[in-house]
Amino acid sequence: MTELEKLAGKLRRFAEVRDWERFHTPKNLAMALAGEVGELLAELQWLTPEEAASVMDDPEAAERLRSEVADIMIYLTRLADVLNIDFVEAAHVKLDKSDRRYDVETYRGSARKAPPLA
Amino acid sequence: MTELEKLAGKLRRFAEVRDWERFHTPKNLAMALAGEVGELLAELQWLTPEEAASVMDDPEAAERLRSEVADIMIYLTRLADVLNIDFVEAAHVKLDKSDRRYDVETYRGSARKAPPLA
Amino acid sequence: MTELEKLAGKLRRFAEVRDWERFHTPKNLAMALAGEVGELLAELQWLTPEEAASVMDDPEAAERLRSEVADIMIYLTRLADVLNIDFVEAAHVKLDKSDRRYDVETYRGSARKAPPLA
Amino acid sequence: MTELEKLAGKLRRFAEVRDWERFHTPKNLAMALAGEVGELLAELQWLTPEEAASVMDDPEAAERLRSEVADIMIYLTRLADVLNIDFVEAAHVKLDKSDRRYDVETYRGSARKAPPLA
Repeated sequence: MTELEKLAGKLRRFAEVRDWERFHTPKNLAMALAGEVGELLAELQWLTPEEAASVMDDPEAAERLRSEVADIMIYLTRLADVLNIDFVEAAHVKLDKSDRRYDVETYRGSARKAPPLA
Repeated sequence: MTELEKLAGKLRRFAEVRDWERFHTPKNLAMALAGEVGELLAELQWLTPEEAASVMDDPEAAERLRSEVADIMIYLTRLADVLNIDFVEAAHVKLDKSDRRYDVETYRGSARKAPPLA
Repeated sequence: MTELEKLAGKLRRFAEVRDWERFHTPKNLAMALAGEVGELLAELQWLTPEEAASVMDDPEAAERLRSEVADIMIYLTRLADVLNIDFVEAAHVKLDKSDRRYDVETYRGSARKAPPLA
Repeated sequence: MTELEKLAGKLRRFAEVRDWERFHTPKNLAMALAGEVGELLAELQWLTPEEAASVMDDPEAAERLRSEVADIMIYLTRLADVLNIDFVEAAHVKLDKSDRRYDVETYRGSARKAPPLA
């Protein structure tokens, strides 16, 4: 069992024992995921690029960011489980496609606005 | 090496060979993550709860959802790597905290608006 | 002076007297806007469609929703002012385009997934 | 009739003549709003702060930004109408509260992370 299957299983049991599965519809989980990403943005929004680059040096800010990233991962894992999506496999598929699409010769060092990963 | 360390490493090399690391600041990646979550919401927004519950039965919609969930996972993994956050470990920490906070006796079957996972 | 010009002007002075204009960059304001939309989603995410339809009957929930919608409007107005966009005029232009694109005969009552407004 | 009442009325009729009102639930509209904000973020995410500051000088980027801001305004206006929220009035109430909360003497020029508007 991979570490993500373990996390997904733990989330499934968390919901089951509380009878909370009916809340975990695709729409509700997607909204919750967006809400958590909003909290992450709020942590970073007023920082200068320089402040943001060293934000993890501040123990309190680091703890808040860890917590927000964790929340996002929790809802993403739960959503992928409910939709029955193998999201690590899916990420590899997308990344390999981007790897071919943005060939290194053409795009290396490109300053143009490009969707660099996906 | 775990599957997520493998994905994070692949993303790191993807950015390195294109000299795109300078784009991957915490703020930019958080914005990109939110943008991808927006695309996920757009896939689900007009569906009734019933339609959303069976959305993966439609092969085309399923493919689009897999693609959106993959994009979110890609940016989340890259952001966590740039911030040096072990996000699976962080997710377990948060989930264990929620497990204690929402004790099963009190919250089981509760219909009240509660943040069920995080 | 329209009501929106009045609101935009008040926001401009709010920032000026505090020397906060340097925080109000397009990227920062767009992040703040997304953060506020995330808070709005959090208010609605666990409600059933029926509960959401009557959410304004609950005075406390109504007050929270008014507050979130206000925050979104504040950041949208400020962002539009910083970018020098007449966003009511722009909204009319987009809506008139949608009006032609989704002609009433073809789309009336359509249950298909459509971007109904924009 | 104010300019926003006029826009809200136009949106209401747009939905009515197409029988699309049933799609315009609070949850669906909030998701659509978040989706449009995601598109706005995507326009700005890879720009440096300097590039973002002059983004409106590029006619094509300016047109895309106007279009995204318009879409956000459309969904915000429609959502506020469905929830029966006077969102300009609500924005003034919130802003006046912020005006008292962040008194000029204490906060002027403050470099600390503060939620400058709302």
